[in-house]
Amino acid sequence: MDKVSIDGRKLGVNFNSVGKAEVLIWAPRAEKATIRIREDQDIELGKLDYGYWQLTTDEIHPGSRYRVILDDQEWPDIASLNQPDIHGPSFAFDLREFQWTDQQWQNIPLEDYIIYELHTGTFSPDGTFEGLSDKLDHLISLGITAIELMPVAQYPGNRNWGYDGVFPFAVQESYGGAAGLQKLVDTCHQKGLAVILDVVYNHIGPEGNYFEKYGPFFTDKYHTPWGNAINFDDAGCYGVRRFFTENALMWLRDFHIDALRMDAVHAIKDFSTKHILQEIKEYTEQLIKKNGRRHYLIVECDLNDPRFINPLSKAGFGMDAQWTDEFHHALRIASGGKKEGYYSDFNGIGDLAEAFNHGYVYYGRYSAQRDKLFGADPEENPGKQFVVFSQNHDQVGNRILGERSSRLFSFEVQKLMAATVLISPFLPMLFMGEEYCELNPFLYFVSHTDPELISAVRDGRRKEFAAFHSEGEAPDPQAEDTFNASKLNWTLLKQPPHKLMLNYYSALIALRKTKPALRTLDRQQCRATVDEESHVLI
Amino acid sequence: MDKVSIDGRKLGVNFNSVGKAEVLIWAPRAEKATIRIREDQDIELGKLDYGYWQLTTDEIHPGSRYRVILDDQEWPDIASLNQPDIHGPSFAFDLREFQWTDQQWQNIPLEDYIIYELHTGTFSPDGTFEGLSDKLDHLISLGITAIELMPVAQYPGNRNWGYDGVFPFAVQESYGGAAGLQKLVDTCHQKGLAVILDVVYNHIGPEGNYFEKYGPFFTDKYHTPWGNAINFDDAGCYGVRRFFTENALMWLRDFHIDALRMDAVHAIKDFSTKHILQEIKEYTEQLIKKNGRRHYLIVECDLNDPRFINPLSKAGFGMDAQWTDEFHHALRIASGGKKEGYYSDFNGIGDLAEAFNHGYVYYGRYSAQRDKLFGADPEENPGKQFVVFSQNHDQVGNRILGERSSRLFSFEVQKLMAATVLISPFLPMLFMGEEYCELNPFLYFVSHTDPELISAVRDGRRKEFAAFHSEGEAPDPQAEDTFNASKLNWTLLKQPPHKLMLNYYSALIALRKTKPALRTLDRQQCRATVDEESHVLI
Repeated sequence: MDKVSIDGRKLGVNFNSVGKAEVLIWAPRAEKATIRIREDQDIELGKLDYGYWQLTTDEIHPGSRYRVILDDQEWPDIASLNQPDIHGPSFAFDLREFQWTDQQWQNIPLEDYIIYELHTGTFSPDGTFEGLSDKLDHLISLGITAIELMPVAQYPGNRNWGYDGVFPFAVQESYGGAAGLQKLVDTCHQKGLAVILDVVYNHIGPEGNYFEKYGPFFTDKYHTPWGNAINFDDAGCYGVRRFFTENALMWLRDFHIDALRMDAVHAIKDFSTKHILQEIKEYTEQLIKKNGRRHYLIVECDLNDPRFINPLSKAGFGMDAQWTDEFHHALRIASGGKKEGYYSDFNGIGDLAEAFNHGYVYYGRYSAQRDKLFGADPEENPGKQFVVFSQNHDQVGNRILGERSSRLFSFEVQKLMAATVLISPFLPMLFMGEEYCELNPFLYFVSHTDPELISAVRDGRRKEFAAFHSEGEAPDPQAEDTFNASKLNWTLLKQPPHKLMLNYYSALIALRKTKPALRTLDRQQCRATVDEESHVLI
Repeated sequence: MDKVSIDGRKLGVNFNSVGKAEVLIWAPRAEKATIRIREDQDIELGKLDYGYWQLTTDEIHPGSRYRVILDDQEWPDIASLNQPDIHGPSFAFDLREFQWTDQQWQNIPLEDYIIYELHTGTFSPDGTFEGLSDKLDHLISLGITAIELMPVAQYPGNRNWGYDGVFPFAVQESYGGAAGLQKLVDTCHQKGLAVILDVVYNHIGPEGNYFEKYGPFFTDKYHTPWGNAINFDDAGCYGVRRFFTENALMWLRDFHIDALRMDAVHAIKDFSTKHILQEIKEYTEQLIKKNGRRHYLIVECDLNDPRFINPLSKAGFGMDAQWTDEFHHALRIASGGKKEGYYSDFNGIGDLAEAFNHGYVYYGRYSAQRDKLFGADPEENPGKQFVVFSQNHDQVGNRILGERSSRLFSFEVQKLMAATVLISPFLPMLFMGEEYCELNPFLYFVSHTDPELISAVRDGRRKEFAAFHSEGEAPDPQAEDTFNASKLNWTLLKQPPHKLMLNYYSALIALRKTKPALRTLDRQQCRATVDEESHVLI
């Protein structure tokens, strides 16, 4: 069986060393596969084993517009690198055209990551990679060492957090497309910044999802919050596994991305002998060995299961680090936040001490919200395997009014929360604007085109907030105003008290960088004890 | 949270050292729980945390008839030890009343197991443990070292393979009940035979299944061939996990069972940090440590995943051995069997060599039937971790006419198949009657009482055989004749050529026991090569 190559992407349309287009499509259900370049020009693909279709041609060039025809039905190419309209034609792109200038760059050690999560569309006034580029110096002077881009895979319209992406290989056109992302990463590396990219391998967005037209990308064996799970272990899974493995490798190899942040991997259901994360890790190790560049794999995972971050040699999934939402939840409740919705399992500063000592708050204890014994103790996993934060896109944006901590906690409590994150023996992460106490919300916004879906999203949002007894109506996710209201207000930066907060964050980060005790991330040498009465964590 | 104790069963009705009945019921949805001993005598249970209900009383004695009332609805006790009518009252039983005489018994080393699988209802003329007992000397003279009982948990009616059991703690009344099984095991141990018990933890039978009345025993997160999966990792799973863990421990501790054979564990869906099999293994190890008796855990698993049989220390599930159906499939096709249904992936003697060399035939190769890369190589797992056979209850009984090899292969081919199993570096297993070339079929039979279910089972059987283009109509599973036709015909034993076959099996087993080369089970020192043309395996 044809295998993933670490040397270059093979799925979709790619260009070989002599400039010819090489096309590879996995469509095991099709009887015939054709590429339509113009209405009067169809080129039929040759059939390979295992449902693959292949073509080498001079007729497709970088920028060429094309469609895929499977048995007389026309579809966009799900492996497209450029897909401005999710329902429209695909465009070829040459990943190797960009002239990289980051030959001197070497990814920084994971323990030195100070992460800044941002959403390209709302971070800068114009919402593009170029706009983002203009703000990098601000981040550098703040002390950030790695930016984390929320997902950039092409989604419907121009407004989305990114988790409704439907073309995992195509970079969102409105952000600047693939070339724009390559340029951004190159610039970051020139400036000494690492780049983490958020990728979504647990579901495919609801609009423009043509995956089932190609093959068995989903399975009804498992249910997830987003419907049937992606098929990582059922019949035909070899093509699905390859699709996402090639995707992961593309970002690292062809976009020089330093680390992937894989979204909600607890929703990746895979009982194969080799978990898809193990497979991605193995290929990543091969790539590192070949290219001499370091890459990290970070996962969002709510299972409190050290298996994900244990090394392959210990039958773990080999992930370098994971997000720990529980640190956030404990910190928030300890700071006086309301115990509603998913906070109901958290009880104040004692839980925060648990998170400090065990990484997880639930490491085998009974969780009332889940009604089960939950988690295991990651005893042997160092602090650098846990990413912590006092807010992130989810924790802010999943509030009905999208309020940041700046709207919920006093100035002094915000400072305390920042210090808790930045002195922790874990990898600290900030959410864009946090450093200067941004006041604008970060709301949930979409720009679907399907009216039924738009209405379903609105209803879904309302339902989701039923657990949170907050007041007020959810802003309309589909409205452009909702998106615009979520943009950062950079004019605050120079105003008190925002400037004061910025200085405080800068000072804290500088302290973390210079004090050896705050840099070792050796959890064995760090022990939190708590005095519940006086509410003090030592 | 109250935990499983290795010292004794706590769920259901049990008797303490002073003869009082101690009742523990898990019914987290109930507002009230009562035991009804007589129409005029209800005793209310006290509520504990986590949905448990407790009572200590003088009013229940061994043999007492009782029902459980949750809120105002009366149900049988799903943890009942005696349940002659699956819809009727439960009866108390004292597990500690039996006078064991096997104090000198020590389980034999796993590598010395020569297993004989049997179905209690059809093995002996009267279909009971006592009838079975009368035949033990035959098995001993044959050279068998361990009998394997098909499931004995109480099922609907008096005719069933056992996989429709609905009271996992109650021993089938028509076989002789709990006391009958204890006596049988004691006798086996006196005679130097180990006893393996087949237990079903992947589903609960369709009729008399009152589990959902008690708690969240099922989850719709996963689908299995038998409907929603048993809830081992969803909300409320702690009670479910405890139920099955206590069950496993009960057989080992209170029935002196030497090894469990856990049915189809691939259908146990469990993404917990600790798999339920790991948990059962840990408790079994505690029990072994305390009692000084060895116990083995054997699984039926079709995933070709060494994780199941790797030790806990290597993040495996710690199972001592597993069935390898693929050895059987390869052997059958190599012997000239038809490539239909689940045999379609097998191609003759080359596959048999793979099974000899790798335990599995598919150890990472592409399987056309599953349409995926399948399995991993169990490189570090010794031969004693694989149970092999040329027929078993499934492979015989899942044929439309239930024909044994005796009806399908020539006498000489049967001998060749027997030799292949018995000289293999794996644990050999025979299916009852095989040793003397029994001619009666082993058919699929049930004795449900629900007319809709009976009709569904009939239809299901017909559908299942659609893949097998055999001729003829499936015998009616519900008919008593079908059951009777499946009984062994012991009169054959002394007739040629049956007697000849029996002598041949005895000689082969004796050879295995006496030749060191056939006893080591060291797969490293055994290598199969194949000459496809001459059809010879060396």
